[in-house]
Amino acid sequence: MAEHFADRLLAAIERKGSPVCVGLDPVLDRLPEALRRKFATFTGEAGRVAAVRSFCLEVLELVAPYVPAVKPQSAYFEVFGSAGVAAYEACVARAHELGLVVIGDVKRNDIGSTAAAYAEGHLKVGAASCPDAVTVNGYLGSDGIKPFIEQATSAGKGLFVLVRTSNPSARELQDLATQDGRKVYEHMASLVASLGASSVGACGYSHVGAVVGATVPDEARALRDLMPQQIVLVPGYGAQGGTADDAAVSFKPDGTGGIVNASRSVIFAHTEKQYAGMDWKKAVESAAKAFASDIAAAVKRRKP
Amino acid sequence: MAEHFADRLLAAIERKGSPVCVGLDPVLDRLPEALRRKFATFTGEAGRVAAVRSFCLEVLELVAPYVPAVKPQSAYFEVFGSAGVAAYEACVARAHELGLVVIGDVKRNDIGSTAAAYAEGHLKVGAASCPDAVTVNGYLGSDGIKPFIEQATSAGKGLFVLVRTSNPSARELQDLATQDGRKVYEHMASLVASLGASSVGACGYSHVGAVVGATVPDEARALRDLMPQQIVLVPGYGAQGGTADDAAVSFKPDGTGGIVNASRSVIFAHTEKQYAGMDWKKAVESAAKAFASDIAAAVKRRKP
Repeated sequence: MAEHFADRLLAAIERKGSPVCVGLDPVLDRLPEALRRKFATFTGEAGRVAAVRSFCLEVLELVAPYVPAVKPQSAYFEVFGSAGVAAYEACVARAHELGLVVIGDVKRNDIGSTAAAYAEGHLKVGAASCPDAVTVNGYLGSDGIKPFIEQATSAGKGLFVLVRTSNPSARELQDLATQDGRKVYEHMASLVASLGASSVGACGYSHVGAVVGATVPDEARALRDLMPQQIVLVPGYGAQGGTADDAAVSFKPDGTGGIVNASRSVIFAHTEKQYAGMDWKKAVESAAKAFASDIAAAVKRRKP
Repeated sequence: MAEHFADRLLAAIERKGSPVCVGLDPVLDRLPEALRRKFATFTGEAGRVAAVRSFCLEVLELVAPYVPAVKPQSAYFEVFGSAGVAAYEACVARAHELGLVVIGDVKRNDIGSTAAAYAEGHLKVGAASCPDAVTVNGYLGSDGIKPFIEQATSAGKGLFVLVRTSNPSARELQDLATQDGRKVYEHMASLVASLGASSVGACGYSHVGAVVGATVPDEARALRDLMPQQIVLVPGYGAQGGTADDAAVSFKPDGTGGIVNASRSVIFAHTEKQYAGMDWKKAVESAAKAFASDIAAAVKRRKP
């Protein structure tokens, strides 16, 4: 029996000293100039895939000493088709070698045996190229979430269901008030809490987590209480406007229960003002370190 | 400027005489015995991918004379990782050679430049291995839908946004009644109708379509009126319990505005009672023909 995902994640956070996750969003146009030049001799797509792959592999080495987890964003690999997906797999495998917990940001969703196929493909037992957890979109209801839970349970892996996303238009559907007074995202939260109750680790958390944006701290505070057994994956810190203190509201007073993601502010740190003129690798390393201590401090401040 | 997606789809439907789509759900365990034996000598995953690929390429040849469109389900390819995705691309390319419109059932969703990367990867201009349209999950609101619309517009392609899905637990989120009396899926329908109004073809339909299940004909009837410019992709016919007449309510009285999908009842027809003992290829061909005429007749019956 594999160790429970929540226990593994919490242990990794404990070891690194900060509940953070670096998102791998390798937007081609933002890669360091030096790296783009290096692969410019490759023709067409092959060169672009090689540049993205090489960049991600380097970023993994740079951030691994400071963060417990990484979150590769599938879209930036799928943009290159199957060759890009192979690069994604290589990054996941390398992250595992470096001892990182990997959350595949794939936002998959479907029903029945189709959802089961997604779950198997992305949470396969024993495949180094498969993440430890994936993000799931729950608009289809429990039929669309349960197959991921079943696969995660048997593989010792996890999932994070989108509850309240960090983007401005999240309000169009997720914030609609329903007739019992609750908002749509609160119904989603109850569904996630109830589906996740079936498998809770020694740490008290389920392997079914939730995604709640740092851009909506008031909602996040209420959601923390609605989902006592969920680890909350918190996007929206940094580039999207959420502060460390905003992100910290998704944690419990004991400092557990959340993991905060930052993507571009770390991996493209060389384009940020405060790292201007610094070698891009040095900038990534500095930004990862600063991110980890910023969040650790905010979570500590929140403790009673 | 590429021809408008809605005009292309309607012309293809007109040519084949029936508004139907065959879903490619190549569930490994259900492939014809003969095919599985043929690839059994391959070791491990490579044999499975080859079997799935070969099965799908054969199915495409068999159904192409009778149906205007096919809908490969990405999950059954992703289950094999990047090698499976390469098989998906090969199927899409072959479908295009056969003159089929291809709807990639990927249900992708994200925001901003991430959604744009998904859209570019799956709706790339001029790439034979990219579908003509994809399915999109709109839980994240317009931020998550617009990047797909922009890419589709520039590439002469389309998308189908999940509005009311065909599965039993769709009701858990999608059917929640909101305070203005409308259900969540009706809000989604209004959003889709409004976002889709920006690009309407000569046929009067937008390249932004909707997914509405055949299992909920009352809801589908109301949605037909709420989304006058949307082509409705109708899953849930056959295996999931929707009849041809249930599916036909998503069409307008003139017989346009919908496309009905059947997957397993066609591609695995050899396992259905009425085709027992028939060669699997003959069974697929017969089932595709029967499906196309069943839907064409039901849509005709619906005409005033």
